[in-house]
Amino acid sequence: MSETTNKPKAHRYFVELSFDGSNFKGWQVQPKDRTVQGELIEVFSKFFREEVYVIGAGRTDTGVHATHMVAHFELDARIESTEDALYKLNRFLTTEIALKRLYEVNLEAHTRFSATERAYVYRIARVKNPFSVGQAWSFQRDLNLSAMKEAAAMLLEYSDFACFCKADADVKTTLCDVRAAYWEQVGDEWVFHIRADRFLRNMVRAIVGTLVEVGEGKHTLQQFKEILESGNRNEAGVSAPAEGLYLSEVIYPDSITDNIIHG
Amino acid sequence: MSETTNKPKAHRYFVELSFDGSNFKGWQVQPKDRTVQGELIEVFSKFFREEVYVIGAGRTDTGVHATHMVAHFELDARIESTEDALYKLNRFLTTEIALKRLYEVNLEAHTRFSATERAYVYRIARVKNPFSVGQAWSFQRDLNLSAMKEAAAMLLEYSDFACFCKADADVKTTLCDVRAAYWEQVGDEWVFHIRADRFLRNMVRAIVGTLVEVGEGKHTLQQFKEILESGNRNEAGVSAPAEGLYLSEVIYPDSITDNIIHG
Repeated sequence: MSETTNKPKAHRYFVELSFDGSNFKGWQVQPKDRTVQGELIEVFSKFFREEVYVIGAGRTDTGVHATHMVAHFELDARIESTEDALYKLNRFLTTEIALKRLYEVNLEAHTRFSATERAYVYRIARVKNPFSVGQAWSFQRDLNLSAMKEAAAMLLEYSDFACFCKADADVKTTLCDVRAAYWEQVGDEWVFHIRADRFLRNMVRAIVGTLVEVGEGKHTLQQFKEILESGNRNEAGVSAPAEGLYLSEVIYPDSITDNIIHG
Repeated sequence: MSETTNKPKAHRYFVELSFDGSNFKGWQVQPKDRTVQGELIEVFSKFFREEVYVIGAGRTDTGVHATHMVAHFELDARIESTEDALYKLNRFLTTEIALKRLYEVNLEAHTRFSATERAYVYRIARVKNPFSVGQAWSFQRDLNLSAMKEAAAMLLEYSDFACFCKADADVKTTLCDVRAAYWEQVGDEWVFHIRADRFLRNMVRAIVGTLVEVGEGKHTLQQFKEILESGNRNEAGVSAPAEGLYLSEVIYPDSITDNIIHG
């Protein structure tokens, strides 16, 4: 069922996309501000000539980017050529949003509830770089990368991430199954990768901000462990800026396309 | 000698930099428009507290970028710590310009006249990509890469590039020694590399525009050869957009630092 009306529609689609979040007030549709979800709803509704509501795998904050976001929507009419629709929709959309794949799924498949894993990337530019402005956190002071690597590895040993969760967030549990968390060097950038079944609001930026404080020597590894065990957001570091953060992957079970007859 | 006064100064410096050309009216200083050279002259003069004129290895057009540009300037006073000056100048400059190296050279070294080789890169985004907007030419229609590779290789067999030279350009000769010219695929981009002793005004963009027309099937390889031999700019293709072009390297002989006592 669509979330705006009670009328169930006949076809449900997943769309994979990337977006530069710099000039959006985040993902979630807002009455006045420009958002990614708002742009998609507007363009899809015009293009498909019916009221189309678009639901995403998660909500990204103002300025956060995605190299791989997934959203779903329902249509009364079946899309005849998804390839043709993808091409035309990309032309209608701003240069800040690129649709990459479009495919039918079964009516139970939900980009948020069916997702089994999500991944984020955080880019830190270690030298001034005109070409990563707005696309990475420019941080040129000394940092101890090996301490940051050791602290990142400690994340895998914990399951309650309350210390990295915005206090006002409306969540029932602060448990996350973190499956990967590591730093890699790519040219002049340090890139943090994290993968889990779910993430709490602001969690990745709070983790990166705290890891950078470990790199600055503001916290020892023992103190980082204590922050993790405290369950208190006030113990952790300042959140890293939005501009370095990318939603990079959302994973679904193969069953989302079960029983779909591909045209 | 400085180019604004007749007073010779005691010290000459080379500065290596990169810049995002999107919001500059090119390199060359202009009375009203914002240019890279203009920004450097202003910031350097303030920082060093003397009238500093900055001369570049070449002039880039509006919107053209550089990952590696070299400029020189003279000072009465010797810079005590080039590392410290580099750090502070980078903080004074906009995020669009990053200084990478600063070092003293002998008074005869000239970023334009001493250069022995220059290289350019041209990026074509083959799929819609929000993160390469303004940093690559977004060209998503079909192109025959192998024809474009063959045509690029033909550039090495010629020395007169009049057919790719802006008709009104004030040059004595249209001869260039092209030492490398090839395409490579990097993720979803096709990247053109070209290296020569010198380049004519607009030459790389005219070459890329014509190579893309070969890729579109508008010219056969035989016709591309005829364009090269025609010596007539009107025979070649439309220039590729500025946003995909990067000055990527300028090479100097080691002798530019001869007789400099490094502090």
